[in-house]
Amino acid sequence: MNDVKVLRSMVEMAQGKQACDLKLIHAHVVDVFGREVLQNRTVLIGQGRIVAVLPDEACAGFAAARTVDCAGRYLLPGLMDAHVHIESTMLTPASFARAVLACGTTRVVADPHEIANVAGRDGITYMLKASAGLPCHIHIALPSCVPCTPFEDAGAVLDEAALRPFYADERVCSLGEVMNVPGILGCDDDLLAKVAAARAAGCMVDGHCPGLTGAGLQAYVVCGMGNDHEEEDPAVLQEHIASGLYVFVREGAAAKSLSRVLPCVTANNAHRFCLCTDDLHAEDILKSGHINAILRKAVSLGLDAPTAVAMATINTATCFGFAGCGAVAAGCVADLVLVHDLTDFAVHTVWSEGKEVFADGCVHCEMAPYPVPENFAHSVHVQEPSPADLKLAVPSKRARVISMLPRNLCTRACIRDVAVDAEGNFDAAQNPGLCKIAVFERHKGLGLAGCGILENYALPGKLLGGALATSISHDSHNIVAAGSSDADMLAAVRQVAAMNGGIAIVQHGVCTASLPLPVAGLMSNAPAEEIARTLAAIEEAARNFAVSPDIDPVMSLSFMALCVIPELRVHTRGLFDVTTFSFTSVDAGPEA
Amino acid sequence: MNDVKVLRSMVEMAQGKQACDLKLIHAHVVDVFGREVLQNRTVLIGQGRIVAVLPDEACAGFAAARTVDCAGRYLLPGLMDAHVHIESTMLTPASFARAVLACGTTRVVADPHEIANVAGRDGITYMLKASAGLPCHIHIALPSCVPCTPFEDAGAVLDEAALRPFYADERVCSLGEVMNVPGILGCDDDLLAKVAAARAAGCMVDGHCPGLTGAGLQAYVVCGMGNDHEEEDPAVLQEHIASGLYVFVREGAAAKSLSRVLPCVTANNAHRFCLCTDDLHAEDILKSGHINAILRKAVSLGLDAPTAVAMATINTATCFGFAGCGAVAAGCVADLVLVHDLTDFAVHTVWSEGKEVFADGCVHCEMAPYPVPENFAHSVHVQEPSPADLKLAVPSKRARVISMLPRNLCTRACIRDVAVDAEGNFDAAQNPGLCKIAVFERHKGLGLAGCGILENYALPGKLLGGALATSISHDSHNIVAAGSSDADMLAAVRQVAAMNGGIAIVQHGVCTASLPLPVAGLMSNAPAEEIARTLAAIEEAARNFAVSPDIDPVMSLSFMALCVIPELRVHTRGLFDVTTFSFTSVDAGPEA
Repeated sequence: MNDVKVLRSMVEMAQGKQACDLKLIHAHVVDVFGREVLQNRTVLIGQGRIVAVLPDEACAGFAAARTVDCAGRYLLPGLMDAHVHIESTMLTPASFARAVLACGTTRVVADPHEIANVAGRDGITYMLKASAGLPCHIHIALPSCVPCTPFEDAGAVLDEAALRPFYADERVCSLGEVMNVPGILGCDDDLLAKVAAARAAGCMVDGHCPGLTGAGLQAYVVCGMGNDHEEEDPAVLQEHIASGLYVFVREGAAAKSLSRVLPCVTANNAHRFCLCTDDLHAEDILKSGHINAILRKAVSLGLDAPTAVAMATINTATCFGFAGCGAVAAGCVADLVLVHDLTDFAVHTVWSEGKEVFADGCVHCEMAPYPVPENFAHSVHVQEPSPADLKLAVPSKRARVISMLPRNLCTRACIRDVAVDAEGNFDAAQNPGLCKIAVFERHKGLGLAGCGILENYALPGKLLGGALATSISHDSHNIVAAGSSDADMLAAVRQVAAMNGGIAIVQHGVCTASLPLPVAGLMSNAPAEEIARTLAAIEEAARNFAVSPDIDPVMSLSFMALCVIPELRVHTRGLFDVTTFSFTSVDAGPEA
Repeated sequence: MNDVKVLRSMVEMAQGKQACDLKLIHAHVVDVFGREVLQNRTVLIGQGRIVAVLPDEACAGFAAARTVDCAGRYLLPGLMDAHVHIESTMLTPASFARAVLACGTTRVVADPHEIANVAGRDGITYMLKASAGLPCHIHIALPSCVPCTPFEDAGAVLDEAALRPFYADERVCSLGEVMNVPGILGCDDDLLAKVAAARAAGCMVDGHCPGLTGAGLQAYVVCGMGNDHEEEDPAVLQEHIASGLYVFVREGAAAKSLSRVLPCVTANNAHRFCLCTDDLHAEDILKSGHINAILRKAVSLGLDAPTAVAMATINTATCFGFAGCGAVAAGCVADLVLVHDLTDFAVHTVWSEGKEVFADGCVHCEMAPYPVPENFAHSVHVQEPSPADLKLAVPSKRARVISMLPRNLCTRACIRDVAVDAEGNFDAAQNPGLCKIAVFERHKGLGLAGCGILENYALPGKLLGGALATSISHDSHNIVAAGSSDADMLAAVRQVAAMNGGIAIVQHGVCTASLPLPVAGLMSNAPAEEIARTLAAIEEAARNFAVSPDIDPVMSLSFMALCVIPELRVHTRGLFDVTTFSFTSVDAGPEA
């Protein structure tokens, strides 16, 4: 690009003195600088760049190797996701790219927080390698909080020294969401060093600070945070904007903030908003779309389309300092999306660096999945689980149970009278409406297993007709399992281990559905359609054996071991009370 | 800044756990992100940075080494000039900084185009050294077009190889205004290489493309141009914005574009506008102000104040990629201006990196002027001028004369009947209303002198009662002189040479006013007040000896040798017709 020959060629193409590679005619172009639509434009492309955007009549005679008639459709810059965990889709980068390119997304900032919790530096290296050279450009935010609490049995600990070398890679664009707000406010040395290193490398530092205001917010921002994707409260958002944070509007699988955030957007501040998905499932992408789905919703809620498109493109580029992209303008990389209209944002054609990568409903570029590294294919190191692991003594017959909430990752800590066996152990079969939950350490074969009681996973008054186990279990990704039968639970865990990671359902000793996730127990090279289909089958099976309709059988379970979300969680070393940030016992003891 | 100790200290100050250095209370803060005013704020400062911006009541108890009561005045980020030639003020960087700090300007992008034409790389090096460490931060745009035409007798030729090493200096932020548009469109190799080097260094490329539209504009932009400060036409501006150029609104000594540009500003595109002065005189700054004068005018023309302030601060920072400045927000460098109101923008106090640099009407920080380098103090190398240099044969008695236009740098080429002496030479004393103009090469002592006839410099029907000579003569800065007496002209040129550069008036053999400009014949270490006073005396003297009232005696003359502005100019090698881009003769020959 910064080569005189290349410049000369582009300058000549722009003037029609040299044939360009591609000429898109009769397009309505969204101008993300002035935030308006330019009617009837021709876009000339060469050297992988946009070389000119001109009125159709101004360059009708200019030669091109190929001409595409856009027939009055709308041409946007390739869409960008400002913050996503690719692992949440269970797709490896190539499969993910294939899925989102079809939605017009040509650039994402991916925070490989999940795989880093399993495989540490190797996980980040894998994501960098597996995403190199894809037509959907993948930038990497370095996971800042691995493990998520100091007492986690995670697969890795990433301190400042571990992260620093990655900044040499030009696709590393930021230090990922700094969730450890108390660590910043309390001046944790290693955390401050991580921030300092990111800044010294000229990188963004991504924030994560819902509800943070006042002096705490100022202290957090002075440290270098540049954005937040959590906040939804209008008054707090106002404060975040004035403090200089970019607002990432998140529309994920669970968390959806657009409708709450949108009333805060004004013409004056709109250039400070970006769009992101954070966590999305393959099925969501296939069904609704990716960033284009957020555009659709934003416009339906009343936002003007060019402003919405700016949030999905140039604003993100500006926030992260991505040069030469994010606009349909001369000099920008030719990442482009042609959509049928500015209401549905249904995608007609996508170009990446001037090459057509999606058309006629198909992604048609080669994206060989990166081979699964040997150590990832064997990332599950769990000691043979035994019935003893699931013993849960409740001599008082009063148990602390984790009560799940409908469509909410928080739980309530409740005390319930429970039926126990002759030895005073919780007997799932005698307690309809409750079930057992257990987490098995799987990184180092330490033989640790924590056990608890779950409410609202099973339908009220019902026993689960099977057990489900998964190696996706935030953030440490040990194996979590739930069921009313110890035998089925153990069998499901064994099945997950046998697959070297994944999701399995066992009913009466038989594995009835499973999804292998051979890449670190989190992802698969299978295409999105296959992942979505298998996962749907697993969910259907789970519903059939009595999982509550308001609970996502797989995803909800995968958050039950995340010891930073209130109130009660299960940990590899026992029950954990998030409100007191300490371990507690399942046995609640006799009533006082 | 990116040191853990510093981060820790700022994080603690923001929370009131450690006393900050400075606490500004009861300020109304202009938020340039959301473009609104935050009432009653306290701003905490430490480590040269803003560490917190909080409601007064939220941090009343926080300790500070010093507290300043802003008493309801308005606190803005330090103002920025996006494009200025410091040499135009005739002030060296320290004197310039002193003058503009008093107006609230704490950061400028300076293009040392003038001194580079005299001293080449040494000139740029001088500007870098002389501006280092000043409380008004001076970034440098590397002059792209030295000399301004290939046939100039300038002091230097700066090709790509000459410029490249300067990008290693972190204060070099861009390749300065690329005026040679035909060079870009025609793919001049060295010019493209200059652009490529700037881009490779991650720097901005400043444009200069008035009236450029269509394919030419696209070719210019695809090459990497990022802004333009020349355009005023609304339709063209719209096209420039959509093409991705930042619009620099220029309010200089002569060119004033604000009132024409402002109607193009919308809430949607306002973040793409910056403010600049380009060329300003010391007197203008002392009388009206600097960027604050543009704010005053913008608001008087109806622009909302926060948007105007954003154009003077964060937009410029964003355009050039200046990190951590341009806003009153935690983490930004504490360059701040307290103004009495948002209408007059009269400056009360200015802080640079948290240090008070202007208060009570005075700049009170040490800014020792950088010593004048020996080679600059002797930059005038002119051969002893002789009467022969001023001989102007017009045997036909019909002469091509340069007709000056009121308040306009363009000239008209006219043919006039003139009186000649016995040898057929133009005799100024016999031609009232006309006068002689001559340019003496002064860089290499080549002994070159070009001569012509000037109309409208003297009052109609009058002879000039003296001669004026100046070593400021765009862009090559040879010595230009005008007068009705050859003897006075030669004496004025000798006086300029004797001062090693400057401006001199000679009347009847006596030097009656002079301004030494010992720094390359362009600048002086004297304070702005002294420069303005001396220049005013020179102008008054010139008016007294019959210079037309619509003509600036010094400045207008200094553009008469600039062979890129139509129609007729005088060159060290003769008369130059800009419309045909070739030399021509003063003698127009007999009528056809």
